[in-house]
Amino acid sequence: MILTLKSDSKKQDIDKLTAKIKELGFTPHISRGAVRLIIGVIGEGEHKYKEVFESFDIVESATPIVKPYKLVSREFKKEDSIIDVNGVKIGGPRVVVMAGPCSVDTKENLFACARAVQRAGAHFLRGGAFKPRTSPYSFQGHGVTALKYLAEARKLTSLPVVTEVMDTRQVEVVARYADILQVGARNSQNFDLLKEIGQCKKPVMLKRGMANTIEEWLMSAEYIVSKGNRNVILCERGIRTFEPSTRFTIDLNAIPVIKHLTHLPILVDPSHGVGVRDYIPPIALAAIAAGADGVMVEVHPKPTEALSDGMQALLPVMFDKMMEDIRKVAEAVGKTL
Amino acid sequence: MILTLKSDSKKQDIDKLTAKIKELGFTPHISRGAVRLIIGVIGEGEHKYKEVFESFDIVESATPIVKPYKLVSREFKKEDSIIDVNGVKIGGPRVVVMAGPCSVDTKENLFACARAVQRAGAHFLRGGAFKPRTSPYSFQGHGVTALKYLAEARKLTSLPVVTEVMDTRQVEVVARYADILQVGARNSQNFDLLKEIGQCKKPVMLKRGMANTIEEWLMSAEYIVSKGNRNVILCERGIRTFEPSTRFTIDLNAIPVIKHLTHLPILVDPSHGVGVRDYIPPIALAAIAAGADGVMVEVHPKPTEALSDGMQALLPVMFDKMMEDIRKVAEAVGKTL
Amino acid sequence: MILTLKSDSKKQDIDKLTAKIKELGFTPHISRGAVRLIIGVIGEGEHKYKEVFESFDIVESATPIVKPYKLVSREFKKEDSIIDVNGVKIGGPRVVVMAGPCSVDTKENLFACARAVQRAGAHFLRGGAFKPRTSPYSFQGHGVTALKYLAEARKLTSLPVVTEVMDTRQVEVVARYADILQVGARNSQNFDLLKEIGQCKKPVMLKRGMANTIEEWLMSAEYIVSKGNRNVILCERGIRTFEPSTRFTIDLNAIPVIKHLTHLPILVDPSHGVGVRDYIPPIALAAIAAGADGVMVEVHPKPTEALSDGMQALLPVMFDKMMEDIRKVAEAVGKTL
Amino acid sequence: MILTLKSDSKKQDIDKLTAKIKELGFTPHISRGAVRLIIGVIGEGEHKYKEVFESFDIVESATPIVKPYKLVSREFKKEDSIIDVNGVKIGGPRVVVMAGPCSVDTKENLFACARAVQRAGAHFLRGGAFKPRTSPYSFQGHGVTALKYLAEARKLTSLPVVTEVMDTRQVEVVARYADILQVGARNSQNFDLLKEIGQCKKPVMLKRGMANTIEEWLMSAEYIVSKGNRNVILCERGIRTFEPSTRFTIDLNAIPVIKHLTHLPILVDPSHGVGVRDYIPPIALAAIAAGADGVMVEVHPKPTEALSDGMQALLPVMFDKMMEDIRKVAEAVGKTL
Repeated sequence: MILTLKSDSKKQDIDKLTAKIKELGFTPHISRGAVRLIIGVIGEGEHKYKEVFESFDIVESATPIVKPYKLVSREFKKEDSIIDVNGVKIGGPRVVVMAGPCSVDTKENLFACARAVQRAGAHFLRGGAFKPRTSPYSFQGHGVTALKYLAEARKLTSLPVVTEVMDTRQVEVVARYADILQVGARNSQNFDLLKEIGQCKKPVMLKRGMANTIEEWLMSAEYIVSKGNRNVILCERGIRTFEPSTRFTIDLNAIPVIKHLTHLPILVDPSHGVGVRDYIPPIALAAIAAGADGVMVEVHPKPTEALSDGMQALLPVMFDKMMEDIRKVAEAVGKTL
Repeated sequence: MILTLKSDSKKQDIDKLTAKIKELGFTPHISRGAVRLIIGVIGEGEHKYKEVFESFDIVESATPIVKPYKLVSREFKKEDSIIDVNGVKIGGPRVVVMAGPCSVDTKENLFACARAVQRAGAHFLRGGAFKPRTSPYSFQGHGVTALKYLAEARKLTSLPVVTEVMDTRQVEVVARYADILQVGARNSQNFDLLKEIGQCKKPVMLKRGMANTIEEWLMSAEYIVSKGNRNVILCERGIRTFEPSTRFTIDLNAIPVIKHLTHLPILVDPSHGVGVRDYIPPIALAAIAAGADGVMVEVHPKPTEALSDGMQALLPVMFDKMMEDIRKVAEAVGKTL
Repeated sequence: MILTLKSDSKKQDIDKLTAKIKELGFTPHISRGAVRLIIGVIGEGEHKYKEVFESFDIVESATPIVKPYKLVSREFKKEDSIIDVNGVKIGGPRVVVMAGPCSVDTKENLFACARAVQRAGAHFLRGGAFKPRTSPYSFQGHGVTALKYLAEARKLTSLPVVTEVMDTRQVEVVARYADILQVGARNSQNFDLLKEIGQCKKPVMLKRGMANTIEEWLMSAEYIVSKGNRNVILCERGIRTFEPSTRFTIDLNAIPVIKHLTHLPILVDPSHGVGVRDYIPPIALAAIAAGADGVMVEVHPKPTEALSDGMQALLPVMFDKMMEDIRKVAEAVGKTL
Repeated sequence: MILTLKSDSKKQDIDKLTAKIKELGFTPHISRGAVRLIIGVIGEGEHKYKEVFESFDIVESATPIVKPYKLVSREFKKEDSIIDVNGVKIGGPRVVVMAGPCSVDTKENLFACARAVQRAGAHFLRGGAFKPRTSPYSFQGHGVTALKYLAEARKLTSLPVVTEVMDTRQVEVVARYADILQVGARNSQNFDLLKEIGQCKKPVMLKRGMANTIEEWLMSAEYIVSKGNRNVILCERGIRTFEPSTRFTIDLNAIPVIKHLTHLPILVDPSHGVGVRDYIPPIALAAIAAGADGVMVEVHPKPTEALSDGMQALLPVMFDKMMEDIRKVAEAVGKTL
């Protein structure tokens, strides 16, 4: 940690600060620049005390040298983590596609959708049972009933199932039915939920919060991994910006950054990040070209009957075409579908 | 709801759309503009079907006419809501000040702080027991022990207590000790938590999520009120922007907007929104001048010993001065402290 | 234009508003919804009067139905515009690559770079002569001398040249030497410059301003086209967001949106939008996969000698590899390099 | 400057880097932390070489210690700069108010407005002659004719005049008629314009660009001051965020930050930053409470006849009331009107 001191710092205040640094078990390393004094705090775990150093009035800024996350960092583990879900590998040379309805509505629609995406080559079935909705008056999901339908659809198609868990009290029941637990963007910093999921053994897909920096996102992943669950898959789904023509702004820059900083795999969800049916396939292809380990998209056989987000659901015929194109782009960047 | 159709919409598709509008119980009202066709959807509750209309390919955009929230809207209730907490009124002609440490550390520090803010004229004692921290390695709060200390401090000073609840499973215990339950920015769209708190009778302070629009924030308030708890206090605490010199950007525009849209009271938390000790009093004064019903600030007798956010804690002497200034500004805008 | 009135609007105020609508030559079309009154303003060119309608106190909001731009819109011209620059076509089935140093430094470095990118298959040589720099103390570009070097490099390699123009007074001289005039992100709403360039015949590459919505960007393009210069190429270069690990956030969502809204071609500049050498090739590939008509990247034979932005310059060997990959991805999406 | 090296940096690459540091005239100061190597670059003017250091592959990040601006910094000049404009002082114990129409339309409206704001106690008359408009089809300002009207209005009321200059070629004529040259938000990084204005002697009001950090804004001010014009007044007018209910988000945090970093005075323009008539007075009061040296607001006697931005123009009667309130708030914070 580098502490930059204010230019008018007095000796007695500097002494108090260096005393504190030593008291916490670190070595202060003072450099006198042309204009300002800077103090290096040498030792392990200094980033835990960033706020303490910042609370001194003479400290203009405290700049960490070491990343605040550890277990998820590329420095801790050099090789890519590959998450195995019922035999399907996420993070390896094969890109994966998760597809299905935004929320599970009727059993018929779900099964029709599951069969369609399986036929087209999808690897996972997605579908919402517990739905985070901005409005209390919107459809909130069919809950456990939907989980049961998903389990039946898995039997029908052999596709493993990914579905969202919104509350600590739901972790157990969702883990009973699902193959991957999804943490949604609005719960990306619901730390009690992250801890609870960390104690579970099921793979987790952690979406990026719409206002989270990449570093904060990795800290949320660190919450899960530090509790013992190493099977974390990241999912970029768009951040909040000023641009109104799409729901969110997909941050594909995040893909090479994530590949540099962490060993965890990363998927992209263009459906929520773009929000307009026709614009989704190009962004899915872009994600693969940028190096994502896969994509998750929404598909519905009858979008005008969907109980949520129908405007962003691909029709099965569009999904078929997109899968063909994903195959070609994956091969162009040295992967397979 | 106004549906704007794409310019090349075909008659058969328009017929399908109007059939759907009628099927859902509304009256379509077609206007032929110079370039495009627009359809007004007339009837009550049409905003619930926004996504259905958007899922039609010929719909370029769906513009709601009525606000999506109801119970919290100024149209539903014209008069300002005044929340009474142990006799202290929030939302009336008197501005309120909540003050205390970011997180409760030692009993001694808490009591010293409580006495200091009471002497200076604060109306509420704040203090974190359950702490949402970005890092799993940071201090996570003393939990129930801290709640007990807060209850003792209340006995000592008669100041009602406000503290955060992070998880549905904590609602009961926090409600047992606290006078106001706080929902933090990171849980502003933790809908299960909002529902649980809606079933509780304690007043709630709902912070704005760092990426939430004012409309989304009011929808979160609607979650609580629609479950039966009308005692909601809003709290602006800064939104995420590109400006790095402060932790967040306090959106004081939100104060007159909120006063126009809703009858609920609004406070401002400059401590988290600004994040630098010296910059906090000017923003607290600005909040009062803009019409806020009060402010919440962090105070600590020994910031360099604080277990979280010491750099933004006011020293008691700074708090004293700020209270004097708040009194003057409140009077300048026709209120009292 | 749809005017939504406040719920308590009085008859006399509504009469004043409808009188104004008629006075301006439009037909008011009143719809009484369940809660509010809305007025459709029927006629051509009503969007020019948006601010007039909004200035009435009873108007809660004014929603345009027609896009505010015309000549650049897909509705005005259905077929893709293909810009021909010295025989190289931008906007057709072949993607184009523009490459070269951020700023022109020595003649030797420029020529080495020009030869390297030509050998690798680039179609245009880029290089800054007039440089917009955040600091007055940074290198401001070699100006006309650099323009002359660029013209020599063109002779050497046959690559047409693209370079930035920052001020109305430079348009003439830059147009004398360059094949494409570039308008930078910081001048995207320098309307006098846009008008001046609109009167010039040279093709223009218009970068998106870092805080511009897609609609505003197209309005800037409309400035140029409405003055008579139809040869506009758009260039996405990243928008300002809260994410600090990259310089800007590249908005690839913009590509399908732009393709839907306008007939103009669109390129992507990952160098400025990402800002870190190693992260640039993946984003260039993503841009092509998303449907961009090409990319512009910075290349420098000796980045540590560059006078600006060396950290984001690709080494020639990296550029060679990227070109191979672009070829494969272009083919995967049905195009050629 | 602190250079943090990548953890796997090799000795030969470190040697190359330190050689470069010495070659540029600085002293490298190496610290070996627990995990990483960091190099302090000691000497004056090192921030000019930030990009050079960053262009080395082994450099993970380069953190400046010294601010990149000099002449505008508080460290360079400790006392507040007070700008004297025809005898009216900006930056001292008296807050100033600039008021008038968004754009000058008829002479009658301008004179009526000028008299109204003078009567209410305004210190400056504002009015647009050259107007930056998003659309090429919107009213572009009456240009020199409007400048002449403004000069007549000054004669009538003795109020000094502030008006915008958009292009280098207009500087001379605007300086002939105006008392303060305004640089608008869209030209905040039009560096040629800043240089031209820096060579002029007239006071300048520099608005913050809608996507500019405070540091970038100060760098733009440094452009002007480094060319010889020290009379710079800063003006916060709102930044671009995701919140759609107001035009921009006014960043009042910027006021104490600016007061800490620079000696230049700062005003706030709530009209453009908020964009809705009724919300403007509360934000003007907040600005004064936060320590701004004044405000600039739009006033129009007949907003529905305004040629631009009528919805945000205060009626004279609203302005009168606001002036009374500003007086009270100014006194509450120890200033006068």
